[in-house]
Amino acid sequence: MINFTVGPVQSTEEVRKIGAENVPYFRTQEFSEIMFENERLMKKFAFAEENAKVVFLTGSGTASMEAAVMNVLTKNDKALIINGGSFGQRFVNICKIHKIPYYEIKLEAGQNITQKELEEIPNEDFSALLVNANETSTGVHYDLQLLSDFCKEHSMTFIVDAISSFLADIIDMKTMGIDVLMTGSQKALACPPGISVMVLSEKAVNKIYANEVESLYFDLKPALEDAKRGQTPFTPAVGILLQINARLKAIDEAGGVEAEHRKIAALADDFRNKIKGMPFEIFTEALSPAVTPVRPTSAKAYDIFLTLKDEYGIWICPNGGELSDIVFRVGHIGDLTIEDNDKLIEALQDMQKRGLV
Amino acid sequence: MINFTVGPVQSTEEVRKIGAENVPYFRTQEFSEIMFENERLMKKFAFAEENAKVVFLTGSGTASMEAAVMNVLTKNDKALIINGGSFGQRFVNICKIHKIPYYEIKLEAGQNITQKELEEIPNEDFSALLVNANETSTGVHYDLQLLSDFCKEHSMTFIVDAISSFLADIIDMKTMGIDVLMTGSQKALACPPGISVMVLSEKAVNKIYANEVESLYFDLKPALEDAKRGQTPFTPAVGILLQINARLKAIDEAGGVEAEHRKIAALADDFRNKIKGMPFEIFTEALSPAVTPVRPTSAKAYDIFLTLKDEYGIWICPNGGELSDIVFRVGHIGDLTIEDNDKLIEALQDMQKRGLV
Repeated sequence: MINFTVGPVQSTEEVRKIGAENVPYFRTQEFSEIMFENERLMKKFAFAEENAKVVFLTGSGTASMEAAVMNVLTKNDKALIINGGSFGQRFVNICKIHKIPYYEIKLEAGQNITQKELEEIPNEDFSALLVNANETSTGVHYDLQLLSDFCKEHSMTFIVDAISSFLADIIDMKTMGIDVLMTGSQKALACPPGISVMVLSEKAVNKIYANEVESLYFDLKPALEDAKRGQTPFTPAVGILLQINARLKAIDEAGGVEAEHRKIAALADDFRNKIKGMPFEIFTEALSPAVTPVRPTSAKAYDIFLTLKDEYGIWICPNGGELSDIVFRVGHIGDLTIEDNDKLIEALQDMQKRGLV
Repeated sequence: MINFTVGPVQSTEEVRKIGAENVPYFRTQEFSEIMFENERLMKKFAFAEENAKVVFLTGSGTASMEAAVMNVLTKNDKALIINGGSFGQRFVNICKIHKIPYYEIKLEAGQNITQKELEEIPNEDFSALLVNANETSTGVHYDLQLLSDFCKEHSMTFIVDAISSFLADIIDMKTMGIDVLMTGSQKALACPPGISVMVLSEKAVNKIYANEVESLYFDLKPALEDAKRGQTPFTPAVGILLQINARLKAIDEAGGVEAEHRKIAALADDFRNKIKGMPFEIFTEALSPAVTPVRPTSAKAYDIFLTLKDEYGIWICPNGGELSDIVFRVGHIGDLTIEDNDKLIEALQDMQKRGLV
């Protein structure tokens, strides 16, 4: 199978080899050194300030989204949430559950945020902004610069879910004033799923220490304390953390986040060029290199996903809910090549001949 | 390195091979079938009732401990907690955080629970009992039959952390009236860490559906709903779930939980026999086959851990906190053999000659 989904994605041979090894015992200095290196490289690739800290949480990306809201915000905050899809809605649900006052800017599926929407919000003192850098459900890549300027103007805490955006897009935490940047092991980090990562500005760290959290597992204070010695409060997904280490070092040696971004962008451009003239439209206004959301004009999107899986050995990423027949997504993250793109295009062309797209 | 810790432990070649493969896309019927099989075999090995359900949570074992308390208990419960070590204390901390009224039976490190301690508790209407089947910090294997009888007599909900006990000990949920049984992927399941598992009785499932939980990630209602179609609400640690599948099937083919228990017990007996006459005492009253807690009589426990790691290529499991110089633990779970025991004994004998134990 060739995997064009947006996670789990394909891993390099080096990363997969580590998956074949026994997982080592981890309450050791040797494992701590690996965790220190993971923290250093995550900070480097996120362009984080020197005093930033990194927490590696064993869980899905949603675990980090919830932990960030629980630890950095309080009932005295007022959060502004950009909600243009299922991951924006997830931030809304999390704030609702934890009784964080919020206002949501609702956007249409695939619509980018502009100055206009920001001007229309109620005239209230918002203290935090929550956004999915890449709303993965529709592939819209929000205008982070606009949101960064808005946060700075209003001295707001800036929380960015970059789960499917980190490494695919270049996001400079320090310049943009981002306080929490999240990603997951199975996105452009291209490791198996099971670890989500939070890079935290000094401001976010201070807020965490000042906050009381009604959870043992999601309380980031012990996580930050243990991270000082390269450890975690509970047994983490040690194997995946070792794979992340190999992957971060490989990215660093190959030219860092800029080179990784260029590789992903080249794959995305190649695919987007090759589908020109086919019965497909790009669904979304502003795109990240991470993923191309495609609207087939003469077939059901979910049927295309099934046929590619069952007859061509290719996974693309189906959409859920209302969009399932309308949009499919093609990811450009993970260990993919131009030749893989060609195989997907050939399969789609063959399906076109068969009247299936 | 040979790994005698209590997790992560050594995996079979079959399990490790899956770790070397790319992780497949999982929102498919193919993955759902694997999850159904995982549920069926977990229920079989836990001797769960037909209507029991299984939740696979991406997280450490502690994530399941917290989710179980949050979802099955309410502020109207009164919980009795057996607290004889750091994992008993963890249940206490979780109940404290979530404002579940509780009373703790405090036991000395290594002490088993008896009728006497149960007779001394306050004369209150306790509605639930929480226990770590194997208090892994000291290796004490509590008298589950005594606790089962007590729960039945008082119609209490019975929550059992079997994280390091499942498969090493035979625990019959149905006969014992256990409502929640938890384990983790990196214990006797002998897969990498990252997944914890909850087997839930029909009574526990009903309590979960009747309960409101202030968490998105730990709310088990969507997890139970998605499990009906073999799926999870958030991207799980797919690779580890595939490894669990291979491991559960291998156990089933090799004679099931009884055969696995016999294998682990034979390793434990062998080790315990071979250290007779050495300057070691068994620390604990009642033992599980999973682990042997050892008190060296003429050396510091933590020093023995370091020397074995650095000079003999062997990991044993050090203790934390107050017990770190007093006790080390030798695990008997994972892909270990009698020959591995011999290598450990030889190393300890060599250290004895060198005056290091």
